[in-house]
Amino acid sequence: MTRHSAVPPPVTAVLDASSRWLPARLGEVEELLREQGAGHGEALAADAAMTLEAGGKRLRPMLVLLCAGEAAGERAVRAAAAIELVHMATLVHDDVLDAAPLRRGRPTVAATSGRERATATGDLLFSRAFALLAAAGDLRAIELLSGASVALARGELAQRQDAYDLSIGERRYLERCRLKTAALFECACLLGHDDDSLGAFGASIGLAFQLLDDVLDVSGPPERTGKARGTDLLDGTVTLPLILAADRDPQIRATDLRALDPASAEALCERIEATGALRQVRSRALEMVAEGKRRLAGLQADRRRLFDLVADGVVQRYS
Amino acid sequence: MTRHSAVPPPVTAVLDASSRWLPARLGEVEELLREQGAGHGEALAADAAMTLEAGGKRLRPMLVLLCAGEAAGERAVRAAAAIELVHMATLVHDDVLDAAPLRRGRPTVAATSGRERATATGDLLFSRAFALLAAAGDLRAIELLSGASVALARGELAQRQDAYDLSIGERRYLERCRLKTAALFECACLLGHDDDSLGAFGASIGLAFQLLDDVLDVSGPPERTGKARGTDLLDGTVTLPLILAADRDPQIRATDLRALDPASAEALCERIEATGALRQVRSRALEMVAEGKRRLAGLQADRRRLFDLVADGVVQRYS
Repeated sequence: MTRHSAVPPPVTAVLDASSRWLPARLGEVEELLREQGAGHGEALAADAAMTLEAGGKRLRPMLVLLCAGEAAGERAVRAAAAIELVHMATLVHDDVLDAAPLRRGRPTVAATSGRERATATGDLLFSRAFALLAAAGDLRAIELLSGASVALARGELAQRQDAYDLSIGERRYLERCRLKTAALFECACLLGHDDDSLGAFGASIGLAFQLLDDVLDVSGPPERTGKARGTDLLDGTVTLPLILAADRDPQIRATDLRALDPASAEALCERIEATGALRQVRSRALEMVAEGKRRLAGLQADRRRLFDLVADGVVQRYS
Repeated sequence: MTRHSAVPPPVTAVLDASSRWLPARLGEVEELLREQGAGHGEALAADAAMTLEAGGKRLRPMLVLLCAGEAAGERAVRAAAAIELVHMATLVHDDVLDAAPLRRGRPTVAATSGRERATATGDLLFSRAFALLAAAGDLRAIELLSGASVALARGELAQRQDAYDLSIGERRYLERCRLKTAALFECACLLGHDDDSLGAFGASIGLAFQLLDDVLDVSGPPERTGKARGTDLLDGTVTLPLILAADRDPQIRATDLRALDPASAEALCERIEATGALRQVRSRALEMVAEGKRRLAGLQADRRRLFDLVADGVVQRYS
């Protein structure tokens, strides 16, 4: 249930289809993000810059801007930067906890500067997000983003609480995904435009995003995901592929997750795959994406097309 | 440069002198803080409750309320709870980094529930602070508190960056104290009432608070501070007593801080004390408190008396 893999963004199609305006707005978001790291002493600038440059798909800022539409102005650009700051803050904290050496193929702040500086860097990125919105007086954005941040932390806590527990069911798993991933996607859409359909679209593709990420942890291959198969299993993170596979294969059900090592985790991945659970989760994710698209049936065709491309991008990343 | 010691609050005098209104308002803050931990799943409630029950002096909420004055209403109570949530979040994160087993004589979240849950608990407390203020539409409070949170994280980063570096001077040390401690005290006062004199008072006593905390790390005694002498030295945290002592004693200047162990750290504490540096830092802190009091010369006598009691409380804690 790592939030990210090292696969590059298949968002070119979205950028092409909106070349009149979206790339320019995204450029402004990058500029604003860069400014947030500046002026806080050299070490911080270096850590923040490293986090920023490691890049990522900027999927959440893109959703903010797409929902705001072609008229997206300063307010949307600011909200897009703020949500990415919160997202980056959680990534930096995740890396501290996982003692992760690499993210997106680059050394993490935790690895380069130590846990102490990484924790403080995360806190700083987080604070800057709210300071940025507060300076602009955007109370609605603060309300949305602080709510989503509460959800993120709750999701993280729920995941740690459920660790190694194979008795958690699908419902609990989905609730965790909602908190940990879907809430921020939903928030991105609502930051762009106050429209429940857009929010529902964001939540659906966010959920699909997490399900597919969890499939990828089991399926690999490592050269594509940038991490060994079964990393979540070794962490004790019980995801949907494992839950469904345990329902079908009593030997999987009887596995002691605490006793796994990298070799037996990889063997468990094979066994999960053999049950057909991965196919099932993938098709569940595709249903969620389709459901998300349906929520946007009322949009203008031009505008809907962009959202369809984003939704397809989430899926293609994993096909 | 730990933010807290286990000494109980000498705030009884303030409570007595304001018994008509302050204890009731502080009770409302406690109630609101308790609510923030509830409704997020049992494990979280337990961690948040543990953090809350560990208590603390509630010095920042008290400053908010005192500045708001006898007319303090819901807005002040909410801001008081929010600033304490941010303060607690930083304490939880500090304990993760220091792998601290105890805080205020109780087990830390990090020790009881693991670093993972403690990091997420800190993130959650932080998010709740902003969610609480956003729900009430208190944009000014969000602006003040997010600004102070940025300062806190910058201060933490500066401290880690300066670790083991005996060449940092008094100016850099004071700047760090401003960021790490004084900014939140100043913020507390401004949250209570929009008045620069109150803000300056908060900054002055916050700075004094940190200086005296740093004296206590060197002077002990452990049975009063709840931690071994020289804990900061072992962390590589260069504080004013050490900076001034190194100016006077070349052997201290030549110390390799990275090579310290608990015994040699205690010996170094003795040597620092022998230079008279502790007396000098203490008297510097007293000057700051006096300067803070002078800033309030314009206040009504009744009201000023309460602030004087708070200021004296900060000092007495260490006398």
